[in-house]
Amino acid sequence: MSESKNIKQDIWKQLDQHADTMGRPEKHLKHLISEKGRLENFSLTGGGIFYDFSRQRIDEKGLTLLLELAESLSLIKTFHKMMNGAKVNGSEKRAALHTATRQFSSEPLFVDGTDVMPEIIAGRDNIKSFAGKVHSGAITGSTGKPFKHIVIIGIGGSYLGAEFVGRALSGFADKGLSLHFLSNVDIHNFSEILSKIDPDTTLWIVISKSYTTAETLANMNQAYSFMKENKIPPEQHVITVTAKGSPGHDPSTPVLASFDMFDYIGGRYSVTSAVGGVPLSLYLGYDRFERFLKGAEEMDLHAKNASPDKNLPLIAALLGVWNNNFLGYPAAAIIPYATPLCKLAPHIQQLYMESNGKSVTTEGEDLEKPAGVIVFGEPGTNAQHSFFQLAHQGRPFPIDFIGVVNPSYDGYESKSKGVTNHQELWANLISQPAALAAGHEQEDKTRSFSGNRPSSTLVLKDLSPENIGRLLSFYEAKTVLEAFVWDINPFDQFGVELGKTTASNIRNEISERNINPQHSFNRVDDISRYYLNVLFSGDLL
Amino acid sequence: MSESKNIKQDIWKQLDQHADTMGRPEKHLKHLISEKGRLENFSLTGGGIFYDFSRQRIDEKGLTLLLELAESLSLIKTFHKMMNGAKVNGSEKRAALHTATRQFSSEPLFVDGTDVMPEIIAGRDNIKSFAGKVHSGAITGSTGKPFKHIVIIGIGGSYLGAEFVGRALSGFADKGLSLHFLSNVDIHNFSEILSKIDPDTTLWIVISKSYTTAETLANMNQAYSFMKENKIPPEQHVITVTAKGSPGHDPSTPVLASFDMFDYIGGRYSVTSAVGGVPLSLYLGYDRFERFLKGAEEMDLHAKNASPDKNLPLIAALLGVWNNNFLGYPAAAIIPYATPLCKLAPHIQQLYMESNGKSVTTEGEDLEKPAGVIVFGEPGTNAQHSFFQLAHQGRPFPIDFIGVVNPSYDGYESKSKGVTNHQELWANLISQPAALAAGHEQEDKTRSFSGNRPSSTLVLKDLSPENIGRLLSFYEAKTVLEAFVWDINPFDQFGVELGKTTASNIRNEISERNINPQHSFNRVDDISRYYLNVLFSGDLL
Repeated sequence: MSESKNIKQDIWKQLDQHADTMGRPEKHLKHLISEKGRLENFSLTGGGIFYDFSRQRIDEKGLTLLLELAESLSLIKTFHKMMNGAKVNGSEKRAALHTATRQFSSEPLFVDGTDVMPEIIAGRDNIKSFAGKVHSGAITGSTGKPFKHIVIIGIGGSYLGAEFVGRALSGFADKGLSLHFLSNVDIHNFSEILSKIDPDTTLWIVISKSYTTAETLANMNQAYSFMKENKIPPEQHVITVTAKGSPGHDPSTPVLASFDMFDYIGGRYSVTSAVGGVPLSLYLGYDRFERFLKGAEEMDLHAKNASPDKNLPLIAALLGVWNNNFLGYPAAAIIPYATPLCKLAPHIQQLYMESNGKSVTTEGEDLEKPAGVIVFGEPGTNAQHSFFQLAHQGRPFPIDFIGVVNPSYDGYESKSKGVTNHQELWANLISQPAALAAGHEQEDKTRSFSGNRPSSTLVLKDLSPENIGRLLSFYEAKTVLEAFVWDINPFDQFGVELGKTTASNIRNEISERNINPQHSFNRVDDISRYYLNVLFSGDLL
Repeated sequence: MSESKNIKQDIWKQLDQHADTMGRPEKHLKHLISEKGRLENFSLTGGGIFYDFSRQRIDEKGLTLLLELAESLSLIKTFHKMMNGAKVNGSEKRAALHTATRQFSSEPLFVDGTDVMPEIIAGRDNIKSFAGKVHSGAITGSTGKPFKHIVIIGIGGSYLGAEFVGRALSGFADKGLSLHFLSNVDIHNFSEILSKIDPDTTLWIVISKSYTTAETLANMNQAYSFMKENKIPPEQHVITVTAKGSPGHDPSTPVLASFDMFDYIGGRYSVTSAVGGVPLSLYLGYDRFERFLKGAEEMDLHAKNASPDKNLPLIAALLGVWNNNFLGYPAAAIIPYATPLCKLAPHIQQLYMESNGKSVTTEGEDLEKPAGVIVFGEPGTNAQHSFFQLAHQGRPFPIDFIGVVNPSYDGYESKSKGVTNHQELWANLISQPAALAAGHEQEDKTRSFSGNRPSSTLVLKDLSPENIGRLLSFYEAKTVLEAFVWDINPFDQFGVELGKTTASNIRNEISERNINPQHSFNRVDDISRYYLNVLFSGDLL
């Protein structure tokens, strides 16, 4: 066994022992948060965000051990390697350069001996130019009307990021364009889009790296039918975002414009690439998109350069592993106290669970401790009136609370009980982590609160494009740094393949039956056959 | 110790031992699903729904033991008691009669010696009459224009049910009224509503049992400011749904109409009461709302009368406890393969986690085994492209898959790869549970699937109002039956009180500072003081 593995195992063991210590009554959060200087010692500002982990079940010794673990595993060095173009996605022999999409320095960045920055910069320039032409009216729909609707045809990483950022920055959407998402293959999803758009003024953006995603192609076909029926030429209403050389570049189906995806950027990390850049620049203007990129870059550089003990994403990642592997929490919630951040949790749910939902190391060995947890969330205070009963008195789970100091809207400031709505929101944001941590023991057990329930609080000054970029980069860096602790690959997703292969077989059965009504599904297992018969019978059997 | 407790403990022990057995290689789901007759023996049709639990990690013996547990705990008897008006909500000394809101038999139903059915029937009649007048134009806005927008001001149980059902049945919304939800106290939520409505044609529905919910009152105040500014008389634009005798009945603030809430119906169980009935009857027409109620009634009667081994909600509840307490899964997902069911998971998340997020029995004793799990979900196939990597290769969790045989929309049936979009959706619905159960071991561990991941599949014939009612009642009955296993009270929610009390103190501090700029927050703890200073400084500190 290598020396570094020995060191890791030794620290891991000490952390295990320390976790036992943290179970003692004197280490209850109600005591920890009462310590003098607790907030100062367990909070950080960096990359434009304030991060308070004073309500995590950690003390000085635990934090020191976690930082030793980080050092022993060279986490930040691996992060540097990632940012510098090393093939950290080993199973697919690829780099993972989402950070390059928001790199504004003049430094080159080599992958396989080629500087990738020129193609990234050209990509941004293309987006800026195209969006500008749409906004100026130089590019219109085929009937000469300006575009009013953007429909993104894409699923998973091809839309969740743009949905999160678009929703968060909707206050900046002053270009007269609305954003719609055609993700699910469910025909109800398509019909819902149709009820909101009209053919003349709709720009369809097909986003798929491989251009083979079944859902995306099926929805694209419906969109082409719709355009055909309405005599709209697709070459003036469709743009694509796809990898060079994908079937999306078939010259027999011309499009209005096409933007490149690169193999060194995975879907769930792609919102700062053309995947997010094209729709968001159309929706918000390229300048806002660039501000968003610059915020992300700021947090990337913080994650890369800050000393470990001052490094927000690193500390957050270490606490994520601590809560998961040492304190035993199998899930974590993200609760933003800001309605515009309502799509943050679904985006991070994908980012984190698809990245870290793994069971083997990069060497193909079974993990000793489970990797990624379940991530879920809703905005506060809504969540308080939904599932916080369980958070306070049921099965505990760690929470990221997120606050925004200044709202984007300042109309209607009627006060209730002496406070504005925004102040009421903050009264709750301040109170929930405090109540979860401290608890309140009472004789009547039904009304008693055990407390000791951990949370962090992140604070943004406002919902600016920069701050949304910072928040995104924070969670991206936290996600990959946790993966580096477990030595798993956060950039592949072979776990979705078996379902795809199985669906392909079932699809073939359905297709055959569509052609031949006598086809009897004898090749599939009993249970699948039952469902195929239900589908074709149109009724429960 | 009572005999029944002894019996329970004995069965519980046998279940524990049996769970160990289920961990053996020969009990892997890939073997169980290959057994002859597996689907026939582990699926049921009842109350209008098909329920397949063949992909749960259970065998004949396990099922027999679970049914013995149900018998020993008199679960169905307790369910009868609940439906018959017994005070099953012991801590609040109340009945729990959500089932009465969809009772259409002529039987009386006594609570404290009074038949409650007349007030329930009168409530339905009032809703029918009021909705009819709005639809006929007999009731209009104050300027004589017909209402076009309904804004529900309510949070938690006061809106999540109506949001779920309204979204599921939006295909039936032919009354020219759109439905909006003003839930969060966040002022962004209010500003978003304002961007969609106009003052003349908006009907505001304030929903709060106590009429003291801080968020709801704050939003109501903003709405009143908005009406005042636009010279709209609230008495022609506001209706209330609240308990008799609540501050909502203050005669000095007259309203267009008021509908009663009863103390025997909790918020999260209230969608079949006036809480859901008023907005849904306006949005869909009372007749559709009644069809929804009748579907719910059908499943209630199934849950009440079906023999235990044929009882869908009972079997689902027993499997919920089995997965949680015996197989050790701490979370469960709900994945409907139908976009219109996209708000099912958030609704059941509240219903289940607020009901079963408890740690003490009805006798005030600590639970030996943890109660309710974490519930989350997104529609399929979206979820496949988001977090199913973790479902297949990471930390396992049980899933409820939900399929709808016939879609509500039949336009645009272009085929991709030989199948329609709806067929593609079903190809995935059929494949995911199969792949999760069977797995597929491979040499290359990165591409290997361990399988043995449990799920159920529910099938509805279509998205009719009746079927949505059946689905709702299924989950309500499953939720309370699980609670009855643990002997917890699924009808109270004292876990939300500590946060409320704490927020009240913080609100007072803010209110005082609003009046007196010198007020310095000396009465609160250091951490809370920091956040109060941030809020008033308008910047990170």
